[in-house]
Amino acid sequence: MTTILALDAMGGDVGPKVVVEGAAIALSQSQGPLSFLLFGDGPLIEAQLDKFPGLRKYSTIVHTDVLITNDTKPSTAVRMGRKSNLGMAVDAVAKGQAHAVVSAGNTGAYMALSKILLKTLKGIDRPAIPAVLPTIKGKTVVLDLGANIDCSAESLVQFALMGEAFSREILKLAHPTVGLLNIGSEDLKGNATVQKAAQLLKDIEDFNFSGFVEGNDITAGTTDVVVTDGFSGNVALKSIEGAAHLIKHLLEQALSSSWLGKLGYLIARSSFKQFKGRIDPRLYNGAVFLGLRHIAVKSHGGTDTIGFANAIGVAIQMVQSNLVDKIEQRLNLGASLQSVGPENA
Amino acid sequence: MTTILALDAMGGDVGPKVVVEGAAIALSQSQGPLSFLLFGDGPLIEAQLDKFPGLRKYSTIVHTDVLITNDTKPSTAVRMGRKSNLGMAVDAVAKGQAHAVVSAGNTGAYMALSKILLKTLKGIDRPAIPAVLPTIKGKTVVLDLGANIDCSAESLVQFALMGEAFSREILKLAHPTVGLLNIGSEDLKGNATVQKAAQLLKDIEDFNFSGFVEGNDITAGTTDVVVTDGFSGNVALKSIEGAAHLIKHLLEQALSSSWLGKLGYLIARSSFKQFKGRIDPRLYNGAVFLGLRHIAVKSHGGTDTIGFANAIGVAIQMVQSNLVDKIEQRLNLGASLQSVGPENA
Repeated sequence: MTTILALDAMGGDVGPKVVVEGAAIALSQSQGPLSFLLFGDGPLIEAQLDKFPGLRKYSTIVHTDVLITNDTKPSTAVRMGRKSNLGMAVDAVAKGQAHAVVSAGNTGAYMALSKILLKTLKGIDRPAIPAVLPTIKGKTVVLDLGANIDCSAESLVQFALMGEAFSREILKLAHPTVGLLNIGSEDLKGNATVQKAAQLLKDIEDFNFSGFVEGNDITAGTTDVVVTDGFSGNVALKSIEGAAHLIKHLLEQALSSSWLGKLGYLIARSSFKQFKGRIDPRLYNGAVFLGLRHIAVKSHGGTDTIGFANAIGVAIQMVQSNLVDKIEQRLNLGASLQSVGPENA
Repeated sequence: MTTILALDAMGGDVGPKVVVEGAAIALSQSQGPLSFLLFGDGPLIEAQLDKFPGLRKYSTIVHTDVLITNDTKPSTAVRMGRKSNLGMAVDAVAKGQAHAVVSAGNTGAYMALSKILLKTLKGIDRPAIPAVLPTIKGKTVVLDLGANIDCSAESLVQFALMGEAFSREILKLAHPTVGLLNIGSEDLKGNATVQKAAQLLKDIEDFNFSGFVEGNDITAGTTDVVVTDGFSGNVALKSIEGAAHLIKHLLEQALSSSWLGKLGYLIARSSFKQFKGRIDPRLYNGAVFLGLRHIAVKSHGGTDTIGFANAIGVAIQMVQSNLVDKIEQRLNLGASLQSVGPENA
């Protein structure tokens, strides 16, 4: 079966160039057949596609004059709705014309349109954004990363169930462990929300809840999934990115400060290349909006072609593993959810 | 003038050994005269002091049978109060017998006893814990790091003023810039609390408020001070520590995976030593409780002698720079504080 992907060709900091080149790379890497629907400024997309005749065959351009860019406010974007590049790309999935949508555009607008057009699963108030991070042991799924800043205990439970189902697919684990992010001060074990969420999570059957974890446990890989609200999650992810950047900087500074350092670097450069590959943020690009009835993947706005290709790869993997069905099953298993949160029709 | 330090000899994961050895190092490094009051189990402290005759001369042991350890609950610790090792050490400062107290013990108990015995400054509801972190540009002060998990906008303003005064002393800056930690999602610029705090901070005269910053700005050194609530601050700090640990691990793994990597490492080892020195967490050990009427410094519980000596060094620096007076002046300048928060007598 051909996997059909709806791409927002105008999203991200650089637009069609990165999106089209990313699609070309994804096509060359894909094991199964792919085709693309590209939404945005027709002539601009066409100009980029001309460079990739192999990709051109599998691509359909859908032109629109109504363009949502990084500067568009989410409220304006929602009003522009189905007629915009982003709205049309999302709507293609809602209408069954594509299996998944990928955009590097405005997170708020994308989330709002996805929620309206793709709808959330039963029991889910608002989709969550997970990230897959490298750890000492392998990889860990962290969520939420900025979609939900004020979270109830019930929302955290929803994130935990979705994150667990997601990690089964992405990390290929039968029984992922789940930790709830908290602070380490001995007496102050977090606020009332995390306390209540922990109580609810303990009561879910057939669920590997490991209790509270701390910021350093994320990259230590203490648990397979780390659950937190969107504020702390965003702070954690960006703090980790910043720390990685600082440490690379300090290492380069130390190595370039002496001749022996420079020589050692030259001799060991394949090791340094391997090291840099492991922490390359582009390899971790592509976040699924969890809790929707269809697959929508958000690429980092500032990514390059390699990163966008990886986001397309995430979308393909999620389509092929039937992620939405599996999350739905997991939510049904979480019996406590029956009494939790309003239903979304 | 001799700086007199009250040391909780029983705090931390290892007790008197680390405290006494740390004091010995601090004494050898100090430019001015020092003396120590050591509170805890007399015979145990004596046994350690016997190893350092040079330190013995400047030390007074104050024995107590009532011991607060890492396992003691803060509520229990407060009840044990002035008769305990920690309480007696704090009380020595309150009574004017010492200029500052240093403990590696239980954060919650230490904070509670400090607040009761040392009292907070006018306009300060609860003390905040800052950390000084390495950045690409130099160093940045981040607060709060876990003392206050649910913060009002007014508390964040207090942290900003105290953090600015603290960074003037510790970073030797005339006009430190101050950022408020938030998330980067384009539309959701944080919750109501950070929004309100930003408004209040904009109105303070003669104050370099740089607006919102994100997690990665901490180690980028975008601002000299980063203000946040204790939950996010704790998550950020521990996420940074965890990321540093992961990256060191991945680097060592990459370098040890090939002969060229090992050879390059050997040749460049002085550069690696320099690099590791820059990110050595022991050098950043020692957090002052800001907002108290006296100097109380918290050492990491798991630190070693080098780290504890550094915490003593922080206490000495804060005493000699009259930090408490300077914070008090800064709080008076923040005119908006007049209408903010209950007074503590």
